[in-house]
Amino acid sequence: MSEMVPFKLLISREEAIKRIMGTVKPVERTEAVPIEESTGRVLAEDVVAVEDVPPFTRAAMDGYAVRAEDTYGASQQNPKALKVTAVLHAGESASVTVNEGECARIATGYPVPQGADSVVMVEFTDEKEGNVSIFDAVHPGANISPQGEDMKKGEAVLKKEEAVTPAKVGVMAALGKRKALVYGKPRVAVVPTGTEVREPGAKLGKGQIYDVNTYTLSSILSANGAQITMSPIVPDSFESLSSAVKRFLNHDLIIFSGGSSVGERDLLVKVLEQAGKVVFHGVQIKPGKPTLFGTVEGKPVFGMPGYPASCLSNAYIFLVPAIRAMARLPPAKPRTVKAKMGKKFVSGSGREQFLPVKIRNGKAYSTFKKSGDITSLAKADGYVILPVNLDVIEEGEEITVTLFE
Amino acid sequence: MSEMVPFKLLISREEAIKRIMGTVKPVERTEAVPIEESTGRVLAEDVVAVEDVPPFTRAAMDGYAVRAEDTYGASQQNPKALKVTAVLHAGESASVTVNEGECARIATGYPVPQGADSVVMVEFTDEKEGNVSIFDAVHPGANISPQGEDMKKGEAVLKKEEAVTPAKVGVMAALGKRKALVYGKPRVAVVPTGTEVREPGAKLGKGQIYDVNTYTLSSILSANGAQITMSPIVPDSFESLSSAVKRFLNHDLIIFSGGSSVGERDLLVKVLEQAGKVVFHGVQIKPGKPTLFGTVEGKPVFGMPGYPASCLSNAYIFLVPAIRAMARLPPAKPRTVKAKMGKKFVSGSGREQFLPVKIRNGKAYSTFKKSGDITSLAKADGYVILPVNLDVIEEGEEITVTLFE
Repeated sequence: MSEMVPFKLLISREEAIKRIMGTVKPVERTEAVPIEESTGRVLAEDVVAVEDVPPFTRAAMDGYAVRAEDTYGASQQNPKALKVTAVLHAGESASVTVNEGECARIATGYPVPQGADSVVMVEFTDEKEGNVSIFDAVHPGANISPQGEDMKKGEAVLKKEEAVTPAKVGVMAALGKRKALVYGKPRVAVVPTGTEVREPGAKLGKGQIYDVNTYTLSSILSANGAQITMSPIVPDSFESLSSAVKRFLNHDLIIFSGGSSVGERDLLVKVLEQAGKVVFHGVQIKPGKPTLFGTVEGKPVFGMPGYPASCLSNAYIFLVPAIRAMARLPPAKPRTVKAKMGKKFVSGSGREQFLPVKIRNGKAYSTFKKSGDITSLAKADGYVILPVNLDVIEEGEEITVTLFE
Repeated sequence: MSEMVPFKLLISREEAIKRIMGTVKPVERTEAVPIEESTGRVLAEDVVAVEDVPPFTRAAMDGYAVRAEDTYGASQQNPKALKVTAVLHAGESASVTVNEGECARIATGYPVPQGADSVVMVEFTDEKEGNVSIFDAVHPGANISPQGEDMKKGEAVLKKEEAVTPAKVGVMAALGKRKALVYGKPRVAVVPTGTEVREPGAKLGKGQIYDVNTYTLSSILSANGAQITMSPIVPDSFESLSSAVKRFLNHDLIIFSGGSSVGERDLLVKVLEQAGKVVFHGVQIKPGKPTLFGTVEGKPVFGMPGYPASCLSNAYIFLVPAIRAMARLPPAKPRTVKAKMGKKFVSGSGREQFLPVKIRNGKAYSTFKKSGDITSLAKADGYVILPVNLDVIEEGEEITVTLFE
């Protein structure tokens, strides 16, 4: 009965996270993607301004390009009169010089003509028959955007390792870049195991159930920067598991899910012991105790609990930080809310407990049924992690709920 | 000079948002997508359990399926002995009945055999030569998951209008669904305008600049549930703008970006007045005053400011709520942090001000240069909206910064 040996030594959640984070490595691969698809990705190079932006000094307002000194002293009562010698629209090209006593009607965005050093806004003018009255004085530089104001040629405007935001996409567009060089997404193989497990859509035979974990893991990991390969279901045998490990060693991370029984889990332990090494097996947390982590040829391999609620709750705790580190993304910062327990809850498992809760009128109620029940999490708004030494939370006690989003 | 008529009546930001939200409509189209791609989408139907989940009563632990009453009184000192009449593994099929004084060795997930009503965990047993010693009594129902425990046949487990989470993907998988029926993404046409504007990658002529807004808008709106069509650049003429509106009326929303000068904006106003109606033109906010909103044949049309910083800041304020409502997503809940102003800031624009700031050591510093400068936002960690009547924020004053993410 060696396949039924129960767990002996459990490590703490903190220790498990520490070992995982000490093992996984940020992806070094890079790829060029269209800038509009680079949001949320991580830059693999500095973005340097190849030219000044704007590339020329331009009007920042509609109005009249003037020599500022020609406007000094102008007011509503004593307007200054200037001669309009040109009409300039953005997108057109003209060689114009503004001399003393002259001005050029100019549209926003148009290069400021030679001689002019400022723009008087149209609101403070009145044009009649080729002459314009200026009602307000401007200083040199008023209402113009100098060449290079936004970015100076040679400036590293964005830095390697920065995550791309919409504004940073805009920086790349303004520099004329069509593609952004970003780090590759971590390639993750999600491998369902279990002889009793069938793909959704297939007809179930006696004693069979649908594969849930491949789909929940793919969803949560994609949302955290991973590129997923969904493997077909692998039977529970040493040979099948061994060959699956080999097949997916071209990925950055392999996650086996399934193997709800001790016997099945022990098979994967043996595969890791033979082909690589076990980093830990068994965590002092409920649900999710039978979590396995190791490496094969340096590649991290997880054996996730087979039970859907355990598998997904452990994904929040262990896989999300691992994937984000591999993707070079900052740690997830889920929102939290305070709530009062709506009903007394008895823990007393001797392990930390990941308790899913729903919140109704500021009160939190456990939605946990059993580790096998995915509705335990689907009906929850978030979760709270209860400490090892907590036996009971009384009704009305305040807890901090981390929201699912 | 009619094309240079300045703004006259500005409406408040709140009023603008009210009018937008009163005009846009949630998308009614639906589509079926693979469940693993449905995260973040909104369900267009209730998901009803077509069968009980689990579909049979199963072992929740590795151990021995027993009649509970056969274990009553068992203890470490006085174990009860039962005869092992079968060995049951998940994925295999067997017709077994557990009679009085008998038990079946059972793996987690296997259907509980007839006659048995509970499972004794392997930890509390010792098997030798076809007989097992039971060291602990169990009650009926112990360590088993009854049929339908997770979901009962006929139960609407997920509800129409719910946004899909990884756990809800799991619910659909557990029910054997391959596809989820979700609402279609709002189809948004982003139409850059401007004779001086060129696509990134093209060579710039004199007085030309790159299109920034199409890329920033596509990024931020995709991240909020939109499906984007990026239009080629449309010249600033009444005819071109009119025909662009017609061409994209098969979308749910049309966004023109560009037209930084009053004249160009007025062209789009005329197009809307002729083909539909203007809902508002001009908002009391800085930057972003020249925002235009109207409808053509009931379809909402935005004219966004041409300046990249204005365009993107107004996208955060006006477009994100509009798109999320159209996509039936809950309002965005960006994170906020408190910070002290690191330097006195003089506003006094007579408008609300969207001020981008960077945060260093808990202090906020304005990163705003000019409305045309995309680095105003790219170098910011977030923004604060300053009220209309605020002239000055002193160094050290506390503000609440909404973070870009």
